[in-house]
Amino acid sequence: MKLSLFTAAVFLSFSAAHAQDSLMFRRISDEVMLRSTCYNNLRVLCKTVGHRLSGTPAAAKAVQWGEKAMKEAGADNVWLQPVDVPYWYRGKESLELNMGKEFKSVPVLSLGNSQGTNGKPLEAPVVMVYNFDEYRALPEKEVKGKIVFFNYRFRQDFINSFEGYGDAVMYRWNSPNVAARRGAAGVIIRSMSTGQDDYPHTGSMHYDDSVVKLPEMAIGNQTADALEQACLKGTVRARMTSECHMMPQMVRSYNVIGEIKGTEKPERIITVGGHLDSWDVGEGAHDDGAGCVQSIEVIRTLKALGYKPRYTIRAVLFMNEENGNKGGHAYADSAIARREQHVLAMESDAGGFSPRGIGLEMTEEQKQYIRTFAPLFMPYNVYDFSKEEGGVDISPIHNKLKVPAAGLLPDSQRYFDYHHTAADNFEAVNHRELKLGAVTMAQFIYLICEHGLK
Amino acid sequence: MKLSLFTAAVFLSFSAAHAQDSLMFRRISDEVMLRSTCYNNLRVLCKTVGHRLSGTPAAAKAVQWGEKAMKEAGADNVWLQPVDVPYWYRGKESLELNMGKEFKSVPVLSLGNSQGTNGKPLEAPVVMVYNFDEYRALPEKEVKGKIVFFNYRFRQDFINSFEGYGDAVMYRWNSPNVAARRGAAGVIIRSMSTGQDDYPHTGSMHYDDSVVKLPEMAIGNQTADALEQACLKGTVRARMTSECHMMPQMVRSYNVIGEIKGTEKPERIITVGGHLDSWDVGEGAHDDGAGCVQSIEVIRTLKALGYKPRYTIRAVLFMNEENGNKGGHAYADSAIARREQHVLAMESDAGGFSPRGIGLEMTEEQKQYIRTFAPLFMPYNVYDFSKEEGGVDISPIHNKLKVPAAGLLPDSQRYFDYHHTAADNFEAVNHRELKLGAVTMAQFIYLICEHGLK
Repeated sequence: MKLSLFTAAVFLSFSAAHAQDSLMFRRISDEVMLRSTCYNNLRVLCKTVGHRLSGTPAAAKAVQWGEKAMKEAGADNVWLQPVDVPYWYRGKESLELNMGKEFKSVPVLSLGNSQGTNGKPLEAPVVMVYNFDEYRALPEKEVKGKIVFFNYRFRQDFINSFEGYGDAVMYRWNSPNVAARRGAAGVIIRSMSTGQDDYPHTGSMHYDDSVVKLPEMAIGNQTADALEQACLKGTVRARMTSECHMMPQMVRSYNVIGEIKGTEKPERIITVGGHLDSWDVGEGAHDDGAGCVQSIEVIRTLKALGYKPRYTIRAVLFMNEENGNKGGHAYADSAIARREQHVLAMESDAGGFSPRGIGLEMTEEQKQYIRTFAPLFMPYNVYDFSKEEGGVDISPIHNKLKVPAAGLLPDSQRYFDYHHTAADNFEAVNHRELKLGAVTMAQFIYLICEHGLK
Repeated sequence: MKLSLFTAAVFLSFSAAHAQDSLMFRRISDEVMLRSTCYNNLRVLCKTVGHRLSGTPAAAKAVQWGEKAMKEAGADNVWLQPVDVPYWYRGKESLELNMGKEFKSVPVLSLGNSQGTNGKPLEAPVVMVYNFDEYRALPEKEVKGKIVFFNYRFRQDFINSFEGYGDAVMYRWNSPNVAARRGAAGVIIRSMSTGQDDYPHTGSMHYDDSVVKLPEMAIGNQTADALEQACLKGTVRARMTSECHMMPQMVRSYNVIGEIKGTEKPERIITVGGHLDSWDVGEGAHDDGAGCVQSIEVIRTLKALGYKPRYTIRAVLFMNEENGNKGGHAYADSAIARREQHVLAMESDAGGFSPRGIGLEMTEEQKQYIRTFAPLFMPYNVYDFSKEEGGVDISPIHNKLKVPAAGLLPDSQRYFDYHHTAADNFEAVNHRELKLGAVTMAQFIYLICEHGLK
């Protein structure tokens, strides 16, 4: 009898706790859907700062914007955390293709971190291959001095488009190294793109220590289709010209941090963030202006609701996710130096689309514990807690300090139409979808703050 | 021992059946994601036909398009089912507002089925109310002869935007009746819109038998905000001018039907459809070109995979969903006259967005049965089988013949930004989202065809 009374008491207190959580989830949702500033914040970031590659004056302006927005959101403390970042310079660039009678200029973007042609034309015949294996099987004389076109298609049969990206991205990241080892002169790649348009997609690449630094350029799907057909029919010549290069000096920049101080255990910290830098095309709206304004919105919403968190809640706008992740490392290194106690880090860096779930990088026990709260999220159409996903910016704190990591999982269908292109602008973000992502983030942060992460 | 062997056999046969379904689900998905014609079909419908209100020459052209597309998809039989439809004519229209010194023209759309001002200006002071109760509480002298502005906002706090629509839509449907009963001269409504833009949204309204037919016009959210402020400050005058009216004669039109003949029980029919008519603005892309091309894609995909269905599978492009539902009734009446046996009817009429679930209007037992198959859909991000949703076109066959009804449930966040506006065009539809809807539909139709609906 005592036991069953005890069981009943446990059950009732559990239900009561959930009723309170459920109510707070609704209050968070109403606050964001009716009074959010995140969509307007994104407009200001996109339209007054625009794109903001690490090290550029625009990135410095974005830091000022972030500091102001964080203060306006009502953060108790706002500060800038120094980060030294690389500065890759694009300059002028062009790709001309002779697919018949004459050279014609096509839409193109050099890949980030790559070394161009010092502004001088590099002209050579094009060798098309569909993948690395095919390239490696060609006789060396057929590739030596040529411009290699790696015509690997982004697979559209993956339902989660990030799987398609994961499958294809080595052709952006590594093609110049593969090509250089057999004496090629330059590289063209088909963009990492689900789009049916002709936008080229930029993004980071790297050079292995031991290889010649070949120029690498991305073309859009339509140009790639035309080039493919021309290569199948006969000889194509390409003329690459580009001034891009990595600047010799690092540039002082900052992570922007705002926090609500914890009332009970302020030394314990929950982080929520996105990255402030973007590629140097478009407006960096989905990637990752969205994650920034959503993280700021978590602070604004919880302050507006008068919520007094037990733990300290920190929103972080990380610098340099795109081509170095220096901000993520600076944040982790600072946490180590200060002996900070981190409960959880969450990131939004998959676009401002309708949320579907939260990815979890933590112990199985912690995942199972979080999944017990899944029914609370269902009225908000958030149902997927099955994936192992965190975020690039929070990976250093996750890896170095074993901090449990979580990543917002929005619908992925449109992301790789826009990712790293001139089309990733404010107009590509829907106001309700953006806000719902912020709702999910604020609800999750609230939940971990209330219940801890055992 | 016998029992446990039996149990094991049942389990194994169940698993085997699911393995086959799972494989077919993947084949359907790959076929649609890699080789679908639905996105291009939508482009042709939107760009060569455009909007296609019932009774118009464009609607007749859409019927021709549908017949051709259904044949190209490989349907065994394609035919046109006669439907007599109303023909509402918009003509010229304008709304001028004097919110200060002078009259200025604002973006406006008369509501469908409404009677205009015979092309002559109707000028009167504006009375603003926020809802019907407030209007009914006003003294009659304050409303008599006035133009009433029903300033009811689409609620953004509902997570499912269709709930916001359901909440607000009576202000479009019924305002002229409420207003006329107390002697008002005309009606302006705030559009049924989640948009932050100024697109007016049209849509159907009706007149009660006993009331004077007042003109009714919708304005976009930005104009509505300006009008609200002006009304709060002082007297505003409006000048409504419109030629719109219902034509006296019905027009002969058609449902377009294509089917794959069943091999085993061809007399049993599964219907999948959308509606071919649209409002007379934009291109009717999400509403409901998407549902049409997805339904055609179900036929194309199952034929392309060489699937031989036990039951007959029918794709139907219904005519006149928007302002009369004559096509839905004609389809049901024909089914009754021919004593057809219908297993299930499914509709896609909630936009070409990422699918999230399938709504079910049927017995509890049938719902439970379908839910046992839910795990098959999870890899395609389709998880919600909880909602009671069918579709307008299939409601007559559901109501008259008790045919189980199902409705595709796409993500609802963007729908009411576009619904019934000039912005509902091809460019507003994402190719992957559209295709994924077709994947879900084809998978569901296949499943019911294989397993029946007990």
